[in-house]
Amino acid sequence: MKVIVILVNPKYSGNVGAIARNMMNFGVNELRIVGSKDILNDEAYIRAVHAKEILNNAKFYDNLNDATQDIDFIVGTSGAVSGDRNLKRVPITPHELAEKYKIVDGTMGIVFGREDDGLSNKELELCDLFVSIPTSEKYPIMNLSHAVSIILYELYVSSLNKPYNVNMREASKLEKDVLLNIFNEFVDKNEYIPEYRKELCKTIFKRIISRAFISGKEANTLMCAFKEKNK
Amino acid sequence: MKVIVILVNPKYSGNVGAIARNMMNFGVNELRIVGSKDILNDEAYIRAVHAKEILNNAKFYDNLNDATQDIDFIVGTSGAVSGDRNLKRVPITPHELAEKYKIVDGTMGIVFGREDDGLSNKELELCDLFVSIPTSEKYPIMNLSHAVSIILYELYVSSLNKPYNVNMREASKLEKDVLLNIFNEFVDKNEYIPEYRKELCKTIFKRIISRAFISGKEANTLMCAFKEKNK
Repeated sequence: MKVIVILVNPKYSGNVGAIARNMMNFGVNELRIVGSKDILNDEAYIRAVHAKEILNNAKFYDNLNDATQDIDFIVGTSGAVSGDRNLKRVPITPHELAEKYKIVDGTMGIVFGREDDGLSNKELELCDLFVSIPTSEKYPIMNLSHAVSIILYELYVSSLNKPYNVNMREASKLEKDVLLNIFNEFVDKNEYIPEYRKELCKTIFKRIISRAFISGKEANTLMCAFKEKNK
Repeated sequence: MKVIVILVNPKYSGNVGAIARNMMNFGVNELRIVGSKDILNDEAYIRAVHAKEILNNAKFYDNLNDATQDIDFIVGTSGAVSGDRNLKRVPITPHELAEKYKIVDGTMGIVFGREDDGLSNKELELCDLFVSIPTSEKYPIMNLSHAVSIILYELYVSSLNKPYNVNMREASKLEKDVLLNIFNEFVDKNEYIPEYRKELCKTIFKRIISRAFISGKEANTLMCAFKEKNK
């Protein structure tokens, strides 16, 4: 899987330079920036050291939507962990992301928000998944370039040990939707599941499917387990 | 195990400040510096942001031997991997260090060398173990503060009991085994699934459960979906 780093309105040129250096340390070449080219000043180039080419080749966009048009899998990063109460935004760890990363194919864009404000809700909605770095509660807010470094490090390390099932194609949105519909129907028709638990069952199954980076083959096989039962 | 960060003759105040911030992000408080107190200038304090106390409490030493007198376990870091030819210096990865760190007790000092020259042979001889961050051959030399960040991140993650420090408890092995057994029984008794597909269904469900880092609550809810059906 190809990794692209996307910075949304970075404020400090030094951070952008340090990020370019870290990208090169971990074999990632493509940098996209939502914001102005002015960020690439002398400070950025000094901090990039030997990674100046990454800055030279950086692409600029007006908004995150434009910057992610050709990306298969958009990963948002978040310093603030929302916990179980917000089901849409349960984050995974960088290590979990790296484990998933090695079994899927395509283009992964990792989106980092502003140093002070992170990503807006509208930007978060564009993301397929969220990753958050576990940090101390006493001071959870990391410097941007160090956060980038840790996530790229995890992806790099996982790319070194190529796994058993390479070239696995992730299930398409349609396949996942069909699987979820079949499971929901299975739950609805299952008289042994108490009514009050049915919605929770559906929600949890959906969460597991999205966290597991299920493959097309896996989705199709599981469909058969729940579908036939409905006849 | 208590972790102490030891910097040998750091050259850039900004790096020292960024290191203090990363230490606080990952719950490490004690900083030792071989070198002069002059390194703690305004730039260091600016980059430390909310971790100024770590700089205020930093201890200074004339040499690495003095700085490590009371440390049980001295870990040297190295950007340049020496390979097989120097058996004394075969490094382990940060992840391997973190795995060891979990199972030992005492004080661990992690020693980082100069930004340009690393650690001298004499300093390396003081170390019990060496750790090296896997990086791209095209540009293996990381910025000092980013290298510190990655190693402290690995130690911090391994110190957590849970995969994530939200209020989600990962399902125990027992819970996952019970869920898998219930699902397998569901598949075996399901006359609509062709026999030749049953084993594959079980395998895939197991793979998905392990990839999804399922929580205890999630495992228990899903058990109910498959269990009652077996009655």
